[in-house]
Amino acid sequence: MALIVQKYGGTSVGSSERIRAVAQRVKRARDQGHQVVVVVSAMSGETDRLIGLAKQIQERPVPRELDVLLSTGEQVTIALLAMALDALDCPARSYTGAQVHILTDSAYNKARIHDIDAVRVRADLDAGRVVVIAGFQGIDAAGNITTLGRGGSDTSAVAVAAALKADECQIYTDVDGVYTTDPRVEPKARKLDRITFEEMLEMASLGSKVLQIRAVEFAGKYKVPLRVLSSFDEGAGTLITFEEDTVEDAKIAGIAFSRDEAKLTVLGVPDQPGVAHKILGPIAAANIEVDMIVQNIAPDETTTDFTFTVHRNDYERALEILQGTAATLAARQVLGDAQIVKISLVGVGMRNHAGIASQMFGALAREGINIRMISTSEIKISVVVDQKYLELGVRALHDAFGLARPPQAARS
Amino acid sequence: MALIVQKYGGTSVGSSERIRAVAQRVKRARDQGHQVVVVVSAMSGETDRLIGLAKQIQERPVPRELDVLLSTGEQVTIALLAMALDALDCPARSYTGAQVHILTDSAYNKARIHDIDAVRVRADLDAGRVVVIAGFQGIDAAGNITTLGRGGSDTSAVAVAAALKADECQIYTDVDGVYTTDPRVEPKARKLDRITFEEMLEMASLGSKVLQIRAVEFAGKYKVPLRVLSSFDEGAGTLITFEEDTVEDAKIAGIAFSRDEAKLTVLGVPDQPGVAHKILGPIAAANIEVDMIVQNIAPDETTTDFTFTVHRNDYERALEILQGTAATLAARQVLGDAQIVKISLVGVGMRNHAGIASQMFGALAREGINIRMISTSEIKISVVVDQKYLELGVRALHDAFGLARPPQAARS
Repeated sequence: MALIVQKYGGTSVGSSERIRAVAQRVKRARDQGHQVVVVVSAMSGETDRLIGLAKQIQERPVPRELDVLLSTGEQVTIALLAMALDALDCPARSYTGAQVHILTDSAYNKARIHDIDAVRVRADLDAGRVVVIAGFQGIDAAGNITTLGRGGSDTSAVAVAAALKADECQIYTDVDGVYTTDPRVEPKARKLDRITFEEMLEMASLGSKVLQIRAVEFAGKYKVPLRVLSSFDEGAGTLITFEEDTVEDAKIAGIAFSRDEAKLTVLGVPDQPGVAHKILGPIAAANIEVDMIVQNIAPDETTTDFTFTVHRNDYERALEILQGTAATLAARQVLGDAQIVKISLVGVGMRNHAGIASQMFGALAREGINIRMISTSEIKISVVVDQKYLELGVRALHDAFGLARPPQAARS
Repeated sequence: MALIVQKYGGTSVGSSERIRAVAQRVKRARDQGHQVVVVVSAMSGETDRLIGLAKQIQERPVPRELDVLLSTGEQVTIALLAMALDALDCPARSYTGAQVHILTDSAYNKARIHDIDAVRVRADLDAGRVVVIAGFQGIDAAGNITTLGRGGSDTSAVAVAAALKADECQIYTDVDGVYTTDPRVEPKARKLDRITFEEMLEMASLGSKVLQIRAVEFAGKYKVPLRVLSSFDEGAGTLITFEEDTVEDAKIAGIAFSRDEAKLTVLGVPDQPGVAHKILGPIAAANIEVDMIVQNIAPDETTTDFTFTVHRNDYERALEILQGTAATLAARQVLGDAQIVKISLVGVGMRNHAGIASQMFGALAREGINIRMISTSEIKISVVVDQKYLELGVRALHDAFGLARPPQAARS
């Protein structure tokens, strides 16, 4: 017998039929002898409907009251799911975040979980009941209702699993696992049976939006085994593990990419201490997030060229700010390009393997793809290329690293 | 400065425009220097929508989970009203029933309030904030969410007012007060400035559905001054008081009536002890509520005639049961009539005034209205007449007791 926390998102509970289907799946796990805690989101569309109501009243709703409002979304789902379980003769009880004391800080709309009181949940589990908990919500120390921000139900599930020391936290979603890359770009993309936490973090933050990044961090911190799987199909999904593979075949987990990039360059800035700060300070002050940063000495060796990337939505604003800064710095020129993308190779295996970078650059060169920027980390190599090369580049790398073939050993 | 509890029902908060209008009214009371607590219902239609969702899942929803579901209705309203107040620069905070510890028993769907923790509410009031509380809901001692049953928000408001020792509990509704009778039947019906609790109880239970009868009982028990007034118009409404009038003019408060009556008669039952029990036992066992009961000796003096009234919906079933009972009792005949109505004269003044009954019967006789049954209590006289005489009877009595004229003294 295992203790399993299952989390179902908005699409999985988007109608009474789907709620009934979730109940069937929960009951099956219980019939197999497991203790089951279910964490659910609001029915798809419900949170938007509630935000719409709020905006009819107030353009920028008071954060505290927005949380009181939004938390009703999950409360509706827990009640309906508990009814659906009861209709299958599967005893169940629903709880709001407040009822199981999901204690958070007081940062309305984006609260962080501090603690969960597991006593009540355990009592129900020991009595043979399924426990259904509202995701996305909690209470602060003063008893005010808080929410964790969009997608926070994943974090709720992981936090509940951590508090209960669950054997596994299963995140049911509309994809059946984590893939080597986006199958819409590379049809040969393969579902991974396992991926490490570090790889998952890089994959998630780079745009494979399967799991909330905070939930993955949380699971990593509390050593909660996470599994991503589909609520519509059968199948074991992808397990996110703490073990790193050591076999040759498993150097690379997958290829992430991001379409919404833009890059900005200042040419011929005097090469003096503090110049990076002078350039990026005004950008940060405008609340624009900077991703990659590259600085190179210019041919004349007294000035430097400085390049960074931002989200495409921030491009126009960043360009304007940068032009102002460049003038004060007596820079030669400002360049910008909003037609670029980022492709990243992710894998804990690259730590111990030289030559991955050159293998990557070689594969791109063979397709005539010019690399505009490069940035590396412990388990990731990212390149910026022209937008038109996105699909070609992803497929070339997927092929070059043999990702379509299942690995021979530990990863299988 | 007074402490006022205001309660707004579903129609009063049925849209964002109406919620904004309620906020204006609340703010006005606060600007006049009062401390204000607001209790609200779910937006009109919302409770039915939620029940519809539940029924898609389970024909007879688990009571505990139905309460978890339904309580979201009021939670939406409190958040929106608090936002609307904030938008008017009127500081406000919303609370669910659980948050202000509206402690009830564990009778899901029809819980009764035991206690309220007023400390948190007082702290907000003292800090100059308006407190917005979800009506209709509470928690039991184990922390489960409960609801009070339909219309329970009135009771919530009264309970909150009692706990806070409020100066007045104002129930805002879609009528502007309590009338001497239904203005749709008697256009000369006059709004009462005051009515006693006992009169209000008789008026409410007899079909003037302005206030939840439990709320009135609660207010009477805890001596909470209640006022019924319109959320759409201005005007002082009707105050429900503990003082009884003593002036001649105020013998009668109003005329209530009920259209949904049916009467059943057994003729020629042997006049023996226990016969009433034998007749009514099977009716009660079928969960049919009996209202008026009249027994008279029959002309032959060895048998008796027994008559009672039931709700018209129960008529067919009651008739069937009664025919079975009559056979075992060797009764002569069973008669039934579903085309009758009840008209009641209500007023604490009639306690001290003989002659009200004969004045009533005289007024009806002058219009040729035959009285089929009579029943009296301390402050009420009810008659059953043929359905066709309802309007004529109500108007005749309204006129005979001069109800269109405001009383001279205390009642004005």
